[in-house]
Amino acid sequence: MENDLVLRPIGFVESPLTDRESAPKQGREGSPDAWLVFEPAVEEGLQDLRVGERVIVITWLDRAHREVLKVHPRDDLSIREHGVFSTRSSDRPNPIGLHLVEIVSIEDLRIQVRDLEALDGTPILDVKPRIEGVPDS
Amino acid sequence: MENDLVLRPIGFVESPLTDRESAPKQGREGSPDAWLVFEPAVEEGLQDLRVGERVIVITWLDRAHREVLKVHPRDDLSIREHGVFSTRSSDRPNPIGLHLVEIVSIEDLRIQVRDLEALDGTPILDVKPRIEGVPDS
Repeated sequence: MENDLVLRPIGFVESPLTDRESAPKQGREGSPDAWLVFEPAVEEGLQDLRVGERVIVITWLDRAHREVLKVHPRDDLSIREHGVFSTRSSDRPNPIGLHLVEIVSIEDLRIQVRDLEALDGTPILDVKPRIEGVPDS
Repeated sequence: MENDLVLRPIGFVESPLTDRESAPKQGREGSPDAWLVFEPAVEEGLQDLRVGERVIVITWLDRAHREVLKVHPRDDLSIREHGVFSTRSSDRPNPIGLHLVEIVSIEDLRIQVRDLEALDGTPILDVKPRIEGVPDS
């Protein structure tokens, strides 16, 4: 069974956001609508997603720096450095992004979502239902 | 910059759970306390975690089957098959586990947590704060 530690993107983000510096830090801070564009190979896995649902999208933040262990939260130098595992910094040893988004429309392999702050071209790793009783707002 | 799609475990789970069949399906369904045992290389990143906090632990479910795209939710054959992206099945193309746990104690590189259903030896990928502004259950 092939189960090493190599990720296989199931799709990619299409977004007007292209620049790490100007992108919002969290989804609800002014993110434009974006598209999740899935690989044909995973089509069956998408069949029960519905417009109006809120789901967790998991991405690989491919422009992050993996060697970083301490950061000023939200890049605010007036806040002391924190260990990255107490922050949502994209710079961290495994730069996995968790995004709570709402599905706006579905066109076959293309799913439009609201509140996604990931940059254009970001690899998508997974889509999951919200954790029970947890991340909504 | 090294940022390919290869995961580097930051630690491993120590748990009495060793068997996929008998493990609870979600953390709050009877999981025993477990330990997150971190690699010395990431120690600085842990420095702001505190006992009593609830955090999201991200794991790599290394005993999952990556070729699965449809499953009977909760292994209940009376429920029709669903696309995996609408389920929390561990079998999926990138078997990433999200676990909301409470930190019970901290001993240097060892952090004891409540409500973790991951099996003994599961690689740990990341630890993150809960999504901001979000009530816990």
